Amino acid sequence: MSSTQHEIDPALVAGNRRPMAGYGAEHFLWDVKDGVATITLNRPDRKNPLTFASYAELRDLFHQLKWASDVHAVVVVGAGGNFCSGGDVHEIIGPLVQLKVPELLMFTRMTGELVKMMRACPQPIIAAVDGVCAGAGAIMAMSSDMRLGTARSKTAFLFNRVGLAGCDMGACAILPRLVGQGRASELLYTGRSLGGEEGERWGFFNRLCEPDALLADAQKLAADLVAGPSFANGITKTMLHQEWAMTIEQAIEAEAQAQAICMLTEDFSRAYHAFVAKQKPVFKGN
Amino acid sequence: MSSTQHEIDPALVAGNRRPMAGYGAEHFLWDVKDGVATITLNRPDRKNPLTFASYAELRDLFHQLKWASDVHAVVVVGAGGNFCSGGDVHEIIGPLVQLKVPELLMFTRMTGELVKMMRACPQPIIAAVDGVCAGAGAIMAMSSDMRLGTARSKTAFLFNRVGLAGCDMGACAILPRLVGQGRASELLYTGRSLGGEEGERWGFFNRLCEPDALLADAQKLAADLVAGPSFANGITKTMLHQEWAMTIEQAIEAEAQAQAICMLTEDFSRAYHAFVAKQKPVFKGN
Amino acid sequence: MSSTQHEIDPALVAGNRRPMAGYGAEHFLWDVKDGVATITLNRPDRKNPLTFASYAELRDLFHQLKWASDVHAVVVVGAGGNFCSGGDVHEIIGPLVQLKVPELLMFTRMTGELVKMMRACPQPIIAAVDGVCAGAGAIMAMSSDMRLGTARSKTAFLFNRVGLAGCDMGACAILPRLVGQGRASELLYTGRSLGGEEGERWGFFNRLCEPDALLADAQKLAADLVAGPSFANGITKTMLHQEWAMTIEQAIEAEAQAQAICMLTEDFSRAYHAFVAKQKPVFKGN
Repeated sequence: MSSTQHEIDPALVAGNRRPMAGYGAEHFLWDVKDGVATITLNRPDRKNPLTFASYAELRDLFHQLKWASDVHAVVVVGAGGNFCSGGDVHEIIGPLVQLKVPELLMFTRMTGELVKMMRACPQPIIAAVDGVCAGAGAIMAMSSDMRLGTARSKTAFLFNRVGLAGCDMGACAILPRLVGQGRASELLYTGRSLGGEEGERWGFFNRLCEPDALLADAQKLAADLVAGPSFANGITKTMLHQEWAMTIEQAIEAEAQAQAICMLTEDFSRAYHAFVAKQKPVFKGN
Repeated sequence: MSSTQHEIDPALVAGNRRPMAGYGAEHFLWDVKDGVATITLNRPDRKNPLTFASYAELRDLFHQLKWASDVHAVVVVGAGGNFCSGGDVHEIIGPLVQLKVPELLMFTRMTGELVKMMRACPQPIIAAVDGVCAGAGAIMAMSSDMRLGTARSKTAFLFNRVGLAGCDMGACAILPRLVGQGRASELLYTGRSLGGEEGERWGFFNRLCEPDALLADAQKLAADLVAGPSFANGITKTMLHQEWAMTIEQAIEAEAQAQAICMLTEDFSRAYHAFVAKQKPVFKGN
Repeated sequence: MSSTQHEIDPALVAGNRRPMAGYGAEHFLWDVKDGVATITLNRPDRKNPLTFASYAELRDLFHQLKWASDVHAVVVVGAGGNFCSGGDVHEIIGPLVQLKVPELLMFTRMTGELVKMMRACPQPIIAAVDGVCAGAGAIMAMSSDMRLGTARSKTAFLFNRVGLAGCDMGACAILPRLVGQGRASELLYTGRSLGGEEGERWGFFNRLCEPDALLADAQKLAADLVAGPSFANGITKTMLHQEWAMTIEQAIEAEAQAQAICMLTEDFSRAYHAFVAKQKPVFKGN
């Protein structure tokens, strides 16, 4: 055994950690500033629908965010006063009605993978929802960690309007935990729009913003998270996900382990020493 | 092998699919109109209590609804301005205090079967709740998919008032998912009545209606669901049930499979072609 | 075999059932009156922080409450207008930043044990929350069965403010079931204070009280529970806990068994006979 075995490259151990600011997005806009990444769905003439290609690129991007060294929170927004109109009728639904079951399952698994990747990346995701937020757009909002809306936003899980079931990309599991089982049932059975004020009252939206201020408010919230202990924030996200279907005993043991890890970070020491010195802690995410 | 093996009777394969409009109900009223079945608990002088016989008949009827060819949504209502006063004190509680444990377990399993059957049938169930809604009545409202109430409705999970625990027919599992764990705990520990406005605010009721319009409003909501893709609605119901205790990953895979099935229905094609033709789709439930 | 084998000491079978009124608390105040125990966190000059020793004593006390013969509901309150400021910065966080992982895990498991013991004892726990309710204090409020607040109460899951994750003592599992996944995420990612009115609107608080009346209101609610069927109340608590991650079918079977047990209690008979005699039942907890 040579001594070089003891020279460890942290980047390799960490599985390819790398900056994402330079990522060249094809099907949406991508911007990284001070740790906050903003994804802008950008086909405003069609209210920002998703296509096969944009689904796949979003899935792959959220997957890569696992290793991003320079992104600690993500904002998702739509261009032109709407969030997202969902799967494009002509570019997605038209082809789908021709497919057989193996290809259909490939499609539904691919869209489901987008949600899995949104939940698996360590960065908290904030959806900034104005105007139309429908179908897969509503799913992207639902799959985010927090949601800022506007009074005029209209969120519709309208799968039954196109002859499908409400069970799309995890909606029958996740939406009931956001707004309660009875309200989720209504949204999924009827496909009706959830208004902004109603959505805030139900806990779907964390709060409502003025349309003109929505993106800035979401980026401000993201920046506040980035100023916090970003490693620990990622553990919060992981545990919110992990504990979804655990017993309380299992959850408490899982949290004991996860929090012990966080107590070994320098951010924990930084907070303590700042407190003793009556200063505001400066967190570094390690 | 004779060629007759290849002649398939779809009704047999589908396990006895048959119309239910002619069902002769003994312990409540039963009416089917345009795909909407209405069950009316009908002992208004006693506020529509349940008896051993009506429990069993309700359980069996919801079980049979799995194969109904002509019922695509169900409304449950009480006659005379009350929903249901629960298990009859004289006809149920009196005998129960005499029984030994095997028979008691047969009873609690039988009442639990009613909830299982309400959740297992593919039709969305809408409870139309006015006046008294207590004990097993509150359970039937809770076990429905949606609930319309009135301002004067009083919903009480009053099991502790008769010396029992709040864990009756699934209440400790289902009620917390409707209104939150803290509010459910209060209702189950205290047995107090939940008022209509409070119930709407908590998400127990989907909305409140005028007492005179309650049944018509519930039937209108049911008719709207019947006009939708009823096979897909049944899958929505199945998945809301199946995903109750799944992880998010399991739920997403389960939905990928379930939605792929729905994408093979003609209702999905009908919606697409109607959209292209700028028409309203006419769904047929297949 | 001697005949003395047939002489059974119920106290031994029941595993050491004993009165707790005389318990001598070291790190908080302890009072038992008419079946209601009141725990008062009592370092008002520091807003009632927890220390290693008070954590451990609280854990052990709630553990012992499993066998208490004279306590049927518990109120937790803080002295001097605040509930609890959480783990003491000097007495807990200072030492923790020095520890290695085995000792850290011992600490996080010990704090988690407090929540497990609060959920495992049969007595419903009512948190009476005024003023500051932060960190481990917020966790104790969350882990109670019901919460009464005041308009001026400030509840903060502020773990990320000290560089830690929100996954502390079960928060990522329990808080989302109280207020919904989106609102819980916000509280855990941002560490911000939840106000009293907001907390009532979200279902964190069962209701708000005047600060001067808070303790008396909480004790009155506890006394009402104690006047109910306390054995059955304990089963309600057990089942709310047991069914956390069950399927609906499992929950219904579990409730059928649990309720059958309760139907064998004399309290159930007492309620029936009182009803027939048009009297108010007097429950005895057996």
